Amino acid sequence: MAKLSDQKKIEVCFTPRSYELYKSDFKIVVVIDVLRATSAICAAIDSGVEKIIPVSTIPEAIEYQKQGYLVGAEREGKIVEGFDFGNSPFSYMDEQLKGKTIVLSTTNGTMAINTAADSSTVVIGSLLNLDVLCAWLIEQNENTLILGSGWMNKFNLEDTVCAGAIADKLIESRLFKANEDSTVAAKFIYRSAKENIFGYLKASSHRRRLRKLNLNEDVKFCLTPNTMNTIPILRNGEIVKLDYVYEPVPVSFK
Amino acid sequence: MAKLSDQKKIEVCFTPRSYELYKSDFKIVVVIDVLRATSAICAAIDSGVEKIIPVSTIPEAIEYQKQGYLVGAEREGKIVEGFDFGNSPFSYMDEQLKGKTIVLSTTNGTMAINTAADSSTVVIGSLLNLDVLCAWLIEQNENTLILGSGWMNKFNLEDTVCAGAIADKLIESRLFKANEDSTVAAKFIYRSAKENIFGYLKASSHRRRLRKLNLNEDVKFCLTPNTMNTIPILRNGEIVKLDYVYEPVPVSFK
Repeated sequence: MAKLSDQKKIEVCFTPRSYELYKSDFKIVVVIDVLRATSAICAAIDSGVEKIIPVSTIPEAIEYQKQGYLVGAEREGKIVEGFDFGNSPFSYMDEQLKGKTIVLSTTNGTMAINTAADSSTVVIGSLLNLDVLCAWLIEQNENTLILGSGWMNKFNLEDTVCAGAIADKLIESRLFKANEDSTVAAKFIYRSAKENIFGYLKASSHRRRLRKLNLNEDVKFCLTPNTMNTIPILRNGEIVKLDYVYEPVPVSFK
Repeated sequence: MAKLSDQKKIEVCFTPRSYELYKSDFKIVVVIDVLRATSAICAAIDSGVEKIIPVSTIPEAIEYQKQGYLVGAEREGKIVEGFDFGNSPFSYMDEQLKGKTIVLSTTNGTMAINTAADSSTVVIGSLLNLDVLCAWLIEQNENTLILGSGWMNKFNLEDTVCAGAIADKLIESRLFKANEDSTVAAKFIYRSAKENIFGYLKASSHRRRLRKLNLNEDVKFCLTPNTMNTIPILRNGEIVKLDYVYEPVPVSFK
């Protein structure tokens, strides 16, 4: 076991709005938006998309579209009119997108990624790449902040469950410790949820929102842990695949 | 049971920093700072203090002191030098303070009260007056927002447990419903904590902070539910006792 004084910090910040209060002293920021932006980014990069350029606003997305880029844009759960894709992971799991660059703007997730962009290392997390991400974070052994995307800067439950899962695994390694109440709460919430994440999140507001939009298949996909061994990383404003070999075989999504 | 469409809203906002995002459409705001500002205010008003004037800054507190007021000021758990009291409930439970007016400035709680002051009704909650407060809120039957004070605008666990307790009781009455994930999470956290709140909060950062300051007796007092039947209410910038008769006999604090 690491000496207590050597332990690195693992903390959770629930929303981009609170990021300023938490950000000092962290080397790595993990951005998560389980429903659905960071799940879609993981699925895209895992399926062979070469680069994703996250942009915060629709005008920026339109600029890229004019330059001939493939562009995804989602607001409040729906594809923004005139764009190629929205926020569904399935739409990015397409042979024809292999090696391509995609520009993406979503309600919460891409804003969170750009909020964290001042950090020296930003990686993309979701339940889909939970174990590989934790294995990599433990190897890095640096102070790590998990930034949830929230919903319009309000607290959300699904990002908290995922953040709690990451924090729990890192604390279990004994190489990391948590001090913030947000991290303690996220860990408690994950532990209550972990046997049945899909059932637990029935009460979540965004699951209800997506159910109304007939997106239950997306939700099931996004809430199935460890279906891929890919970690997307932000490099010079572009999200690419991190070169990291991780042995376990991912579970298949049914 | 009330028709679903008639149900009033009960929601939880974790910190003053997020208040702007949540505040619209609520008639009543309940401010809580379990450790220790709102517990101290409840104890003071219950013990016969006539008025508490909450002020946000130390310079304001000094102004009142110059005018001859009794003034309490706390920052980071300690009494600010030169003031009469800090944030300990026990210091306000004093025969000699009956009928007196006290000015109070604390790290988080009084700022939260002043943040909510634009609302039409602001009441002061804590675990100490949990049942009487819930009974009164159910009688009012208005959209109600619970505002946690947090710690320096960060999420805190003890306010979340108390907020979850209030939300849980109001939802149980079936006259209220919750939509925000923050409320769902607070309710989950309260339900995990309720059998042993003191034990559950061992992990909380502020309990650790207060333990270091030898304030464990304060913590035990603040975490004992239903020791009084008093609801403090904000009227024209002053906190006074709400005129409300509630039958059950409060438990004694041992």
